[in-house]
Amino acid sequence: MDRNDVTEKIIETKIRRNITWSKVAEEVGKSKEWVTAGCLGQMAFSDHQAQVVGELFDLSPEEIAMLRVPPFRGSLPNQIPADPTIYRLYELVSVYGPTIKELIHEEFGDGIMSAIDFDMSITRQEDPNGDRVHIELSGKFLPHKSY
Amino acid sequence: MDRNDVTEKIIETKIRRNITWSKVAEEVGKSKEWVTAGCLGQMAFSDHQAQVVGELFDLSPEEIAMLRVPPFRGSLPNQIPADPTIYRLYELVSVYGPTIKELIHEEFGDGIMSAIDFDMSITRQEDPNGDRVHIELSGKFLPHKSY
Amino acid sequence: MDRNDVTEKIIETKIRRNITWSKVAEEVGKSKEWVTAGCLGQMAFSDHQAQVVGELFDLSPEEIAMLRVPPFRGSLPNQIPADPTIYRLYELVSVYGPTIKELIHEEFGDGIMSAIDFDMSITRQEDPNGDRVHIELSGKFLPHKSY
Amino acid sequence: MDRNDVTEKIIETKIRRNITWSKVAEEVGKSKEWVTAGCLGQMAFSDHQAQVVGELFDLSPEEIAMLRVPPFRGSLPNQIPADPTIYRLYELVSVYGPTIKELIHEEFGDGIMSAIDFDMSITRQEDPNGDRVHIELSGKFLPHKSY
Amino acid sequence: MDRNDVTEKIIETKIRRNITWSKVAEEVGKSKEWVTAGCLGQMAFSDHQAQVVGELFDLSPEEIAMLRVPPFRGSLPNQIPADPTIYRLYELVSVYGPTIKELIHEEFGDGIMSAIDFDMSITRQEDPNGDRVHIELSGKFLPHKSY
Amino acid sequence: MDRNDVTEKIIETKIRRNITWSKVAEEVGKSKEWVTAGCLGQMAFSDHQAQVVGELFDLSPEEIAMLRVPPFRGSLPNQIPADPTIYRLYELVSVYGPTIKELIHEEFGDGIMSAIDFDMSITRQEDPNGDRVHIELSGKFLPHKSY
Amino acid sequence: MDRNDVTEKIIETKIRRNITWSKVAEEVGKSKEWVTAGCLGQMAFSDHQAQVVGELFDLSPEEIAMLRVPPFRGSLPNQIPADPTIYRLYELVSVYGPTIKELIHEEFGDGIMSAIDFDMSITRQEDPNGDRVHIELSGKFLPHKSY
Amino acid sequence: MDRNDVTEKIIETKIRRNITWSKVAEEVGKSKEWVTAGCLGQMAFSDHQAQVVGELFDLSPEEIAMLRVPPFRGSLPNQIPADPTIYRLYELVSVYGPTIKELIHEEFGDGIMSAIDFDMSITRQEDPNGDRVHIELSGKFLPHKSY
Amino acid sequence: MDRNDVTEKIIETKIRRNITWSKVAEEVGKSKEWVTAGCLGQMAFSDHQAQVVGELFDLSPEEIAMLRVPPFRGSLPNQIPADPTIYRLYELVSVYGPTIKELIHEEFGDGIMSAIDFDMSITRQEDPNGDRVHIELSGKFLPHKSY
Amino acid sequence: MDRNDVTEKIIETKIRRNITWSKVAEEVGKSKEWVTAGCLGQMAFSDHQAQVVGELFDLSPEEIAMLRVPPFRGSLPNQIPADPTIYRLYELVSVYGPTIKELIHEEFGDGIMSAIDFDMSITRQEDPNGDRVHIELSGKFLPHKSY
Repeated sequence: MDRNDVTEKIIETKIRRNITWSKVAEEVGKSKEWVTAGCLGQMAFSDHQAQVVGELFDLSPEEIAMLRVPPFRGSLPNQIPADPTIYRLYELVSVYGPTIKELIHEEFGDGIMSAIDFDMSITRQEDPNGDRVHIELSGKFLPHKSY
Repeated sequence: MDRNDVTEKIIETKIRRNITWSKVAEEVGKSKEWVTAGCLGQMAFSDHQAQVVGELFDLSPEEIAMLRVPPFRGSLPNQIPADPTIYRLYELVSVYGPTIKELIHEEFGDGIMSAIDFDMSITRQEDPNGDRVHIELSGKFLPHKSY
Repeated sequence: MDRNDVTEKIIETKIRRNITWSKVAEEVGKSKEWVTAGCLGQMAFSDHQAQVVGELFDLSPEEIAMLRVPPFRGSLPNQIPADPTIYRLYELVSVYGPTIKELIHEEFGDGIMSAIDFDMSITRQEDPNGDRVHIELSGKFLPHKSY
Repeated sequence: MDRNDVTEKIIETKIRRNITWSKVAEEVGKSKEWVTAGCLGQMAFSDHQAQVVGELFDLSPEEIAMLRVPPFRGSLPNQIPADPTIYRLYELVSVYGPTIKELIHEEFGDGIMSAIDFDMSITRQEDPNGDRVHIELSGKFLPHKSY
Repeated sequence: MDRNDVTEKIIETKIRRNITWSKVAEEVGKSKEWVTAGCLGQMAFSDHQAQVVGELFDLSPEEIAMLRVPPFRGSLPNQIPADPTIYRLYELVSVYGPTIKELIHEEFGDGIMSAIDFDMSITRQEDPNGDRVHIELSGKFLPHKSY
Repeated sequence: MDRNDVTEKIIETKIRRNITWSKVAEEVGKSKEWVTAGCLGQMAFSDHQAQVVGELFDLSPEEIAMLRVPPFRGSLPNQIPADPTIYRLYELVSVYGPTIKELIHEEFGDGIMSAIDFDMSITRQEDPNGDRVHIELSGKFLPHKSY
Repeated sequence: MDRNDVTEKIIETKIRRNITWSKVAEEVGKSKEWVTAGCLGQMAFSDHQAQVVGELFDLSPEEIAMLRVPPFRGSLPNQIPADPTIYRLYELVSVYGPTIKELIHEEFGDGIMSAIDFDMSITRQEDPNGDRVHIELSGKFLPHKSY
Repeated sequence: MDRNDVTEKIIETKIRRNITWSKVAEEVGKSKEWVTAGCLGQMAFSDHQAQVVGELFDLSPEEIAMLRVPPFRGSLPNQIPADPTIYRLYELVSVYGPTIKELIHEEFGDGIMSAIDFDMSITRQEDPNGDRVHIELSGKFLPHKSY
Repeated sequence: MDRNDVTEKIIETKIRRNITWSKVAEEVGKSKEWVTAGCLGQMAFSDHQAQVVGELFDLSPEEIAMLRVPPFRGSLPNQIPADPTIYRLYELVSVYGPTIKELIHEEFGDGIMSAIDFDMSITRQEDPNGDRVHIELSGKFLPHKSY
Repeated sequence: MDRNDVTEKIIETKIRRNITWSKVAEEVGKSKEWVTAGCLGQMAFSDHQAQVVGELFDLSPEEIAMLRVPPFRGSLPNQIPADPTIYRLYELVSVYGPTIKELIHEEFGDGIMSAIDFDMSITRQEDPNGDRVHIELSGKFLPHKSY
């Protein structure tokens, strides 16, 4: 048994019981973005959080223990994701990656947007031409320094 | 001569003359995100826009003509980008891709966030613990339909 | 158990019972192209459709629940498909891809043919020199816009 | 000088002189799909056709000779194309490839749709919800035979 | 259970019972090349052929049904085969591929040797310097046509 | 200047002057298969042969010297060849590779068909259903031995 | 059950019983290099040899039958081996490959060192600065011939 | 100008002037294996050695200076070498790699054969059945140690 | 059962029982860096060490025997590691690799830092701006020598 | 002209003039590690630093301007570096990557060692058994946080 097995069990149970991620997030008391990532094996839960998730998904004590361990992150089966919903994100990196790099450097100087000191939100943006998915990414700017 | 040659010339001239992307965007009359992407060979300019860009970067009529043509998009030299600033975006796709997919489906049903009917903005988010890079992505939701 | 297991079970049962995709499509009340894609794990069925498919292939309630979930799409075991029937489609992308791009741009301007707002049909085209496979692809044109 | 150099020269001249592929096709007397593919280095022209293309694009006798030679086909710089317009075609192979295989086999038995005894057309399909790109692929069915 | 499982069972039984491919071919009434390819999961058998193969290898009715289905072809675990006997064939494609292309075009014009309307034989060629493997490949020439 | 440059010059001159490979082979006094492979940079010519090839293609003494050197073999730009005429050969390795391996072992025991002590011929096989490309491969059987 | 299963069983038993490869080789009556390769699934044993190996490792009659079959060779899980002991061999090919090619051609003319008509020995070379691993490779020179 | 340019110039001059590697080695006063590797850009020469090589190949002072710099090693254009002479070495790593690992560990314990404290020789081994290429590799055993 | 199975069992037990690597290292009497690597299947333990580890993690005699065998090293599931904590190390090789090479050569001459005669330590470096991870790598310099 | 051209010019000039990286670092007034990385195109210099580097290497004003721009980082020609000196670093990531991850998590909790807020030093560690390369890596610990 490893963390992937726990993830698969969570997904199966979610489908069988029709649990929503929003509901899980509410119970855990954190954002739906972070909690979903955790349930998909990308974040480590605290003791209490793991307990809550475990109860919602009928996990064993061993499985709950797994939820508290820093996971081996990375959730794509291929370097270039095949699923269209996820591929569009990769395409944005491909098309806009150097643009984002240029504009970060123009505004902040040499450095990166942290992917660790980071948070994200996904919301519905109502629009008469068809609603839009609105994703906000926020990461601390980390400057390159000389030494 | 192809579009890449024009892009390289724009970058060289930008460095030599210390032109900012914001300045180019202002002259073109569009957002800095879209205009930078265009200057980096990822978007097609209108006749007028191409003219403005051409003057700013001393382009020849042939080079200006190139700016109006729908480009062969994709600006990464490798499938997994090596540059740390761009890699962090790829890492977000790797860590959060399936999470974003789950939450789009939970909110909207089966479908994708369009990467074509799409806009983006990058801003500085002031923060006492260190300013943050704030990226907003907005793409039309496109539902999968049966037929 | 995940969606792949359901797909495998459907295929096994289809072979054992000699069920045709056309028959399944007729029962579901949708085109054979979309229904086959759904049975192969590439489309999400509605509650009613899932029920019909489930009965045809003797699926359990859990398996039927799986059919309603937006799947992790992408059904090729390799980036370049080895099976000759499928490879020929890849070869068309390789040989004609830039041609199709040029002609879409010439007719519609800069943009893409949507693969989401999309439908397809496959029919027999009778021909004295040997019948032909006739595939029609229809996708909404999505224009690139400046912003 | 090789065929790629001729292709690049054709593309440059096309942009500079604002020539359309439809116009070239009309002059050559063949479909715009086949002629564009030929101009992009994927088909061999007859002597007369090469002459016509050569005049339209100011090619030298050596370059015209190149147009008559069966080319080294394949026009993608990467196995998975990065350009969104072309990627959508690849995505269709990824999502629908096994579906098309199943339906060809159901209708015709074991075999393939030829990519050689093949023709294609791309047209605008008017639609109140937004016009659609309509691509028709027609290839001879080639049966697998025992021996 | 899928076709690979049937292939593995056939191979195991063949080794255990010391059955030769020639013997199987004789029973099936087709060439040893085609029959071996079929037993290795690369060809679809007719009802009668599948029955004969099934009896020779003690297959269940489900397994025999599998033998009649057009298989997902392609039998290499890697794009470049590691096994020396098979690698030599790949090496021939690598060293002689463009040569064969040139000579097909010189003799037949632009087109391909079909890999579908195709047959093959493998025989021993006696030779005082050491016997030789003699492989004959025969595929219909398919011309590229303009349209 | 390296061997590839000589190959490119030979191909350019061949097209410009309409030289056939058969003609070159006749002058060299060897088979068209081996001579074409040599002209494409895959075989080393003897002094005399290099002289003959050099005269036919107007090569300089340095270029002629290059023809006599054992080349760095391998003439595919990609591991999986994109050109349809060459891909079909790769497909045969993919579909029939293990079959050929099995039948070599059944006839000869454990070992390989040499790709070095090897010759090949390509001929037209007349056929009322359309002429066929007939390729004969002949390589010495090399047994694996224990030691 | 396939040959890999037999290899894994041999390795497990070897560790559990503390059997050395030298001991196995002595019993089989062949070199330790060839016998180890055979036990690792890279060589085919004769009936008698397979019997001896089978007794040493408690193999079943089916497993012993597997040992006599020409295996699907190639024992690296990746194209570039990660294990440092094996990687150093790959590194030698990378650093010295073209050097060895040049020196074989200088001494023998155009051709290869056979990897089939081949034997190898590994011995300890005593050295006051630290003992050395001494590997001798011996393969028949196979000349490229014109035809 | 970089080291590769120097290597290419050496190879061109070698062919034009018919210089042998053995001759170069003799002049340099080191083995033909090490000197050839150095000329192919894989080893750094001392001042004196670089001078000798420079004179033999008419190198400029800048090119001679390049010969003294530790090079960026690795001389394969692909991870799996396509040239048959070099591929056979790769095949040996593939077929015998784990065997060599096992036998090094059996004789020496856990550790590697150094590829740095290493030397090699290539000689002709006369044999009535055809002369053999004999390669001796000698590398210091480096043990893994606990700490 | 192979070494990976033992590694997985160790990790599961560690999580279930809340054992720390430091504790294991203390019991074994070696550094936490080397012992952790050993428990993760990258180092071979002595008889006594294996016994200690086996008791801590409830291993069977067979599993303990596995711990004493030189392992098949390499612990990354992909060539480029996806996990952010490990990727940062890869990124350092990508960004600083040639720099480290230059500075090793400037200080020591041509050669490498051994990865076998090697040790490592990881410590916390207190820092008012946030504590730092401090990794020290120490490997014997191995010079390239001529021969 | 891009940054790579500047890097190549710096390297050529360094070799021709025998400049050491330590000397450059001294002039620039920063560590040799950071300055070498900058000269190799991996760091951005300040105006003054760029001026100093430009004078040492005879750079033009345009080239000096390039040195001040945040570069497109990543200096490996392949994902797995072929050069032995650099490969050993990659091997350490492969062998020790998960170990370092475990020990960072044990000491600091879930998070990473920053590769941006990072510094490094390389020194000679004298040792009677042969001097050692001593590399110290220091990066700020960045914790994963819930949100």
